[in-house]
Amino acid sequence: MNSSSVKIVLAQLNYVVGDIEGNCKKILDAYKQAKDEPVLLICSELAITGYYPQDLVSKESVLNRQDEALKLLADETNGNSAGIVVGYLARNRKPTGKRLFNALALLSNGEQVFEYHKRLLPTYNIFDEARHFSPGTNQGVFKWNGQRLGFLICEDAWADSDSLKYAQDPVVDLKHHPFDLVISINASPNNLGKMQQRIEVIKKVVDATKAPVVYLNQVGGNDELVFDGASFVMNTDEEVVYQLKSFEEDVAEIDVEEVEQTTVPNYMTDGEIILKQTVLGIRDYVRKCGFSKVVIGSSGGIDSAVTLAICAEALGGENVVAITMPSKYSSEGSVGDSVTLCKNLGVDLLNAPIAEEFELAVKRFELMSGEKPSGLTQENIQARIRGRILMEYSNHFGALVISTGNKSEMSVGYATLYGDMNGGINPLGDLYKMEVYALAKHLNETAGKELIPNVIIEKAPSAELSEDQVDSDSLPEYPLLDAILKLYIEGDLLDSSQAKQCHEVIAKFAATEQDIQRIHGMVDRAEFKRRQAPPIIRVQKRSFGMGRWLPVAAKY
Amino acid sequence: MNSSSVKIVLAQLNYVVGDIEGNCKKILDAYKQAKDEPVLLICSELAITGYYPQDLVSKESVLNRQDEALKLLADETNGNSAGIVVGYLARNRKPTGKRLFNALALLSNGEQVFEYHKRLLPTYNIFDEARHFSPGTNQGVFKWNGQRLGFLICEDAWADSDSLKYAQDPVVDLKHHPFDLVISINASPNNLGKMQQRIEVIKKVVDATKAPVVYLNQVGGNDELVFDGASFVMNTDEEVVYQLKSFEEDVAEIDVEEVEQTTVPNYMTDGEIILKQTVLGIRDYVRKCGFSKVVIGSSGGIDSAVTLAICAEALGGENVVAITMPSKYSSEGSVGDSVTLCKNLGVDLLNAPIAEEFELAVKRFELMSGEKPSGLTQENIQARIRGRILMEYSNHFGALVISTGNKSEMSVGYATLYGDMNGGINPLGDLYKMEVYALAKHLNETAGKELIPNVIIEKAPSAELSEDQVDSDSLPEYPLLDAILKLYIEGDLLDSSQAKQCHEVIAKFAATEQDIQRIHGMVDRAEFKRRQAPPIIRVQKRSFGMGRWLPVAAKY
Repeated sequence: MNSSSVKIVLAQLNYVVGDIEGNCKKILDAYKQAKDEPVLLICSELAITGYYPQDLVSKESVLNRQDEALKLLADETNGNSAGIVVGYLARNRKPTGKRLFNALALLSNGEQVFEYHKRLLPTYNIFDEARHFSPGTNQGVFKWNGQRLGFLICEDAWADSDSLKYAQDPVVDLKHHPFDLVISINASPNNLGKMQQRIEVIKKVVDATKAPVVYLNQVGGNDELVFDGASFVMNTDEEVVYQLKSFEEDVAEIDVEEVEQTTVPNYMTDGEIILKQTVLGIRDYVRKCGFSKVVIGSSGGIDSAVTLAICAEALGGENVVAITMPSKYSSEGSVGDSVTLCKNLGVDLLNAPIAEEFELAVKRFELMSGEKPSGLTQENIQARIRGRILMEYSNHFGALVISTGNKSEMSVGYATLYGDMNGGINPLGDLYKMEVYALAKHLNETAGKELIPNVIIEKAPSAELSEDQVDSDSLPEYPLLDAILKLYIEGDLLDSSQAKQCHEVIAKFAATEQDIQRIHGMVDRAEFKRRQAPPIIRVQKRSFGMGRWLPVAAKY
Repeated sequence: MNSSSVKIVLAQLNYVVGDIEGNCKKILDAYKQAKDEPVLLICSELAITGYYPQDLVSKESVLNRQDEALKLLADETNGNSAGIVVGYLARNRKPTGKRLFNALALLSNGEQVFEYHKRLLPTYNIFDEARHFSPGTNQGVFKWNGQRLGFLICEDAWADSDSLKYAQDPVVDLKHHPFDLVISINASPNNLGKMQQRIEVIKKVVDATKAPVVYLNQVGGNDELVFDGASFVMNTDEEVVYQLKSFEEDVAEIDVEEVEQTTVPNYMTDGEIILKQTVLGIRDYVRKCGFSKVVIGSSGGIDSAVTLAICAEALGGENVVAITMPSKYSSEGSVGDSVTLCKNLGVDLLNAPIAEEFELAVKRFELMSGEKPSGLTQENIQARIRGRILMEYSNHFGALVISTGNKSEMSVGYATLYGDMNGGINPLGDLYKMEVYALAKHLNETAGKELIPNVIIEKAPSAELSEDQVDSDSLPEYPLLDAILKLYIEGDLLDSSQAKQCHEVIAKFAATEQDIQRIHGMVDRAEFKRRQAPPIIRVQKRSFGMGRWLPVAAKY
């Protein structure tokens, strides 16, 4: 073996957060492929606990179990020539600072021979690592088995690449070392455009270190976040020479020096990414929560149709149940279109008309208060009876309710709390209405048939909670609404170039400054609903949930 | 005027987060008391935006409005001898790091004459300042009007006082300066035991600086957090010589040198604190959200009784509506006890029996699924019909629903999502069941009469959702449950002394290790419910909500 040739096994695995023993077993299974060769098994950031363990890192029991797992992995390297690189929680022995590091271990010949601490701790958007970790202060440089290795953990390579510019740059600090290989272990949640960013970031690492770089990511859905894997190796010509699968577990052994054929990075279309991301996000959330079946209200509209299709793709149609719950305001198509859709998807459809319960609720309200419930009250009564029926099914049959609200609705609060917002998780909550339509078309194209009936895609959007109601009675048309929302929610709000983009939207849609102010106000006032919404599957850079933290009782 | 004598006006104000113009007006009103004297008006940390503005700090418009407010305040100091010390968001002009500082301005003679940046940024529990701010690097030392002043912002004084030990200590750095006065501006949310901690912390500041210290806090409820004010002045003998009111706005002018009489810090009993904290928290949340009335389900049990009493105290009985919603499982006392209670509190009581709707829901479930709903399903149907009735009232009459779940229930998930958990805010969510009983007794003692009927305090706790049901059918007795929960939830989980305390609980209650594991498991599995729960008023150090961040789809 050439001393500058490095053999590695890339272990791109799907971890359950906190399941230390289960995650450790996965790593050991991958290690079996590496045994008895001078190769390095490379696992992702915080692989042993899964990323992100959040406040679980404060549990003594979690740390103790993790110590045992690390020892078990080290023991496994005893008496053979293969090593393991793995991310874990390391204790900070200094008297000051946070008591943990986000760390990397190199295990070899039965011992931990090297320890590196992540230096840049992302604390913005969905990340909150300064809450738990002290920053590392040493460089990631180590010689193993004659190989000169450099190490980075995720954000370490992003000192100058995202909205925040750090005061130090671990990549620049590696500049003057000669390396055979630089290993970057990551837990990089995917969002639209992320792969392109990663390639640019790793090109800068190659440029600085003049070495090939392995970028290793975890895969799978953990609550809101979906990790897409797509781990890759980049050569010194800044070309990708190898890439693992996207959105799937994958383990592969390669010789970095011998891989010569370059490959195009897996830049999927937005449509492909959205479909894969929501499908994997739903599948993992449902299974990691211990469920196998889900239940969804089917209104005959676009949102529930797409949600049903995603869940059928994720779990198999036989594990999905739809319930149609018509009222006197439901259109003729409401039930009929649901029937066709569910037949296409192989999904059982139950029928639970709500007219009787609605009338009884209205009568009881009048008895209680002496008044007839207002229009809005009546609309919400219907949504809440439906939400309860889904929960009844869930409680009795053990199926998880999946919520169907899209990002446009969640933005402006066009949804009923404790009604159609009910559910354990929401796959469409990070997709604006026009993106839901695009996803429906993409689903049909991928299937090569009319999986979602065109009549559902083409009908005017309506909540069907009052006579002849359509969404445009209460909201601007969706193309305009979505354009304004995207600027307000996705935009970096400190960037004053927003004003220019706002003017472009106003011009394009013949809108007014008042339209914009009205929509901003609706977004601000709906914060109380989002505070109690189920987690959504994150798809875009700025999603509702853990990455967006705003007060409720406020005035702004 | 003696050159070492410092006159100050303490402005302990109740800010609305984000309401820059309103907050600025409050400061100006307080400044009127200071005008035309060589005094310093002292306002709290981030007074102009209110604490904590969260991601609002990323809005360019918020920063611009704040710049204007700061200029307005500075202009006001033009031509008179009174200055203003005020907390605000300062822009970081350096090319790296977070783009803002948590800052203090000294305004005098029409200008900002001094700027100080908070050096220790709390990022644990309910705090997340590293998300938004760069740490300051300069010392808080400035001479104004002949006075040698030292400055600290909140956490700056806590380098060695809480669970985290910082690597630097701004108080120690002030040690070698001679000061006439040290000014600490704060936004310190209250919890049980906090006042004692503050006194100890400020004693250390006096000890280091050999100067009197002004500790200035904001007051009022902002979402989960309640700030108690209780600002004080400590002399060089480490005695409190002046204290503002607790849980109220208060503005007072004093001469630090001339205040000679020492005073006992306002160490209230836990009962007093809990009552004041929940009352102010509810009052401010309701009003700052733009509501004047609230509606609460009255079951005849202890939790709803205490919630009603707190709301009546906070808003006046005439602004509180109770609804009794008996079912066939309700005890005789359920309605009768609610009637007595509401009469005592001056609260209107409406009656909405749910039997008919419940029966219809059961019948419809059978038609839909061919099965009779399980016991748990039937229990949840009742809770969700009741939750919907409260929301109907809310939608129609514009009253905010107040949730009534206590911390014991919220811990183990003994509550129905989208049912009795419904509400905009929950005042009891940080009180264990035994603490709710204690609060009931305290309310009656304070009132000097049986405000909450003793029969409510004495009856066996029951959800009354099935025949002869009592809580102890499903849960351990509350004294044992609460003891185990307190250790698991309040404890610092990295502290292995927990094991010893656990053994004490086991011995005291003749419990077993299995009891403890069972309860821990219930807490862990209920995370999905708490994720969608309304905000709770924080009372203890470790509350559910923003200060506790755990994954849902996890195994630990």
